[in-house]
Amino acid sequence: MSNEKIPYKIYLEESEMPKQWYNVRADMEKKPAPLLNPATGKPMTAEELGHVFCDELVKQELDDTSRYIDIPEEIQDFYKMYRPSPLVRAYCLEKALGTPAKIYYKFEGNNTSGSHKLNSAIAQAYYAKKQGLKGVTTETGAGQWGTALSMACSYFDLDCQVYMVKVSYEQKPFRREVMRTYGANVTPSPSMNTEVGRQINAEFPGTNGSLGCAISEAVEAASAQEGYRYVLGSVLSQVLLHQTVIGLETKTAMDKYGIKPDLIIGCAGGGSNLGGLISPFMGEKLRGEADYKFIAVEPASCPSLTRGVYAYDYCDTGKVCPLQKMYTLGSGFMPSSSHAGGLRYHGMSATLSELYDQGLMEAVSVEQTSVFDAAVKFARVEGILPAPESSHAIKVAIDEALKCKETGEEKTILFGLTGTGYFDMFAYERFNNGEMSDYIPTDEEIAAAVAKLPKF
Amino acid sequence: MSNEKIPYKIYLEESEMPKQWYNVRADMEKKPAPLLNPATGKPMTAEELGHVFCDELVKQELDDTSRYIDIPEEIQDFYKMYRPSPLVRAYCLEKALGTPAKIYYKFEGNNTSGSHKLNSAIAQAYYAKKQGLKGVTTETGAGQWGTALSMACSYFDLDCQVYMVKVSYEQKPFRREVMRTYGANVTPSPSMNTEVGRQINAEFPGTNGSLGCAISEAVEAASAQEGYRYVLGSVLSQVLLHQTVIGLETKTAMDKYGIKPDLIIGCAGGGSNLGGLISPFMGEKLRGEADYKFIAVEPASCPSLTRGVYAYDYCDTGKVCPLQKMYTLGSGFMPSSSHAGGLRYHGMSATLSELYDQGLMEAVSVEQTSVFDAAVKFARVEGILPAPESSHAIKVAIDEALKCKETGEEKTILFGLTGTGYFDMFAYERFNNGEMSDYIPTDEEIAAAVAKLPKF
Repeated sequence: MSNEKIPYKIYLEESEMPKQWYNVRADMEKKPAPLLNPATGKPMTAEELGHVFCDELVKQELDDTSRYIDIPEEIQDFYKMYRPSPLVRAYCLEKALGTPAKIYYKFEGNNTSGSHKLNSAIAQAYYAKKQGLKGVTTETGAGQWGTALSMACSYFDLDCQVYMVKVSYEQKPFRREVMRTYGANVTPSPSMNTEVGRQINAEFPGTNGSLGCAISEAVEAASAQEGYRYVLGSVLSQVLLHQTVIGLETKTAMDKYGIKPDLIIGCAGGGSNLGGLISPFMGEKLRGEADYKFIAVEPASCPSLTRGVYAYDYCDTGKVCPLQKMYTLGSGFMPSSSHAGGLRYHGMSATLSELYDQGLMEAVSVEQTSVFDAAVKFARVEGILPAPESSHAIKVAIDEALKCKETGEEKTILFGLTGTGYFDMFAYERFNNGEMSDYIPTDEEIAAAVAKLPKF
Repeated sequence: MSNEKIPYKIYLEESEMPKQWYNVRADMEKKPAPLLNPATGKPMTAEELGHVFCDELVKQELDDTSRYIDIPEEIQDFYKMYRPSPLVRAYCLEKALGTPAKIYYKFEGNNTSGSHKLNSAIAQAYYAKKQGLKGVTTETGAGQWGTALSMACSYFDLDCQVYMVKVSYEQKPFRREVMRTYGANVTPSPSMNTEVGRQINAEFPGTNGSLGCAISEAVEAASAQEGYRYVLGSVLSQVLLHQTVIGLETKTAMDKYGIKPDLIIGCAGGGSNLGGLISPFMGEKLRGEADYKFIAVEPASCPSLTRGVYAYDYCDTGKVCPLQKMYTLGSGFMPSSSHAGGLRYHGMSATLSELYDQGLMEAVSVEQTSVFDAAVKFARVEGILPAPESSHAIKVAIDEALKCKETGEEKTILFGLTGTGYFDMFAYERFNNGEMSDYIPTDEEIAAAVAKLPKF
């Protein structure tokens, strides 16, 4: 089909929306390593995981053989309120770059959470409700996940307790207030509500908090309350599964117009959006049906895939979560405070880690000033003000499109635009004022953090 | 067509998008009164208006006979980046209310300006560029219009100078930073850049500024610079014209599914979104082809239609703009500082004023705590966090749906959801904390403001 026929935005009909999530692990010959119980060193059982997570989500977490998992109708109905998300042909960006490449992006920012996070939040809230729970606990850093979960819980009338990293709680009052508007109970972390919070407050008075610490508090709070479970917005296989709605919609939309991407690019923090976007394409690659090049983009200040090690590690600072085999910088690694936005997680999805280890996916790291430079360029021609996280993918998509300009190749580039930057204007302000700097951890810093990995 | 077949969201195909704006004045037997030159008391000529506005926009402003005006292709292309906007069936809200009414809303918030303002901003920037201008000046209060214009100017590489009401400049740093990200020059108003700004600063040291004052500064700045014109985001007939893209899309989408609204509701500040939404339906009513009930919703704290007078008045505090016949509270009227959000304009679109005066449209005013109450209710079931302005329409749509619940009528209600509330979280915070109050001006206050109207 000729380019002229491809609209600026491709929306699917409701009837074309996915009715099943796709579980890429089913098509992997070598599966991701199992979660381990740090006390025993043995794979976590469903029963052990059931103390922390909802039963149905535990089932999804452990299921690496079912290729498709039905999306319950209630979740499909919620998806219909803000999905399908548009697959956008970046005509204006292509023109501005003067590239022969064809650039597409799947835009997940058109919902109040401002990101793709809602795709998994609604699923997790649904299963919690179905299990008859009273509520869920979680952590949030930048706030997208907390917002998404608040929206989902409000929809299913579940109590929602969010531990928000203290520095974000104070610097992002708007995010906090959006969550409160959806009825969530938002607590700055470390708090005095939990044992681990009290310990950290005693040890580091006046600390700004960290995501790892907020996870530990949320897990403890879930265990301490009858009828509560903990939910997590990234990293886990269940989250990747829910996020495949992104890739499935994208694939259907592209197939409809006969478009085949050569290159699929996504930013990678915990890996959920990237995993969700690439899964159906990766499935084809794993089954030998098609070939694609995948690029994970991470910040140079927190380069898990490109500079970490592939090993078992804790998912949280408090070491209360199961151990996961993944590319990691060590659970004690903290990106420089000059780092803006998300993608500051020390580890990576086990599935993506395994795919990367098998050479099925590539990874690059980029510095944040170049990311904001790409973000502003993109915003000015495509209209959308992107989240700093998403802008990592934009940066590499632009780089690749400029390579095509040099070589004359008419590659088709697809990237995930995971969210909007409305709540990141402090970071944009620093960039606009020329006050933003780059930071790349030294080999010594990384070696020191990695040296503290648990031995399993 | 049965309800079961109507999707949650109706998107038009690109080919179904409007190629012409609809000029409702063409179908009005009694036209809106002409703009007057305050110095002569005579209708403004195209030449006089051309000192302030772009030539093509002056033409549109004065044209009350052409029923359709072509949308230039460049503007159609830009529209394709963020339009068509979805027409949403509020299934979840209906269910939550237990109403037999069918509720639809046209959602204009899915673009970075967060509102419908972009529809006119891109048109005005286009005509400025086409005329070979260097740039444009404008004012902004809450910031939606300034953001929209910044985006539009960045797209056409025009200089954009925004005078932002000082209190908003200080309290909405994020809005300011979004505009700067799009390359705009944002100045807190009153400034020392203009004669009128210096005067106001001298007379009221430390003043917070006002929209009327910012308008005066922007107009003066445009006149003082070679190659600059002033642009305005509401009130004017040209703006209403551009905003008819909202109503035209809505009508096409509804016609496609055989839906006929009984009731069309929109919030009204200067009137541009309401006018844009209702125009094609009003056209049918004016031509005797169909009947609809239209309701303009305004804040009780700034009730131009419901408590103002229909008379010639100044559009700005500085009295540098032409006189317009409209429903007005007097250009000196200032809504209470307890009033949150926009819709604080003292006057109203001349077209809507005339339609209202002819009894073709109704108006109601609502108090802000009830508006925020409706906003939160809506957000929790429909997902979208609405702008306070848009929530005025939500409030009345809910009221009408509840009336249907009482009477058992299965009315079809359509309302305009003009934007999102991401940048209004201070107001939500006040509401969430129970700190928001209502204010209704006394008859004496209104009489005093109205007494100062110019005599024409």
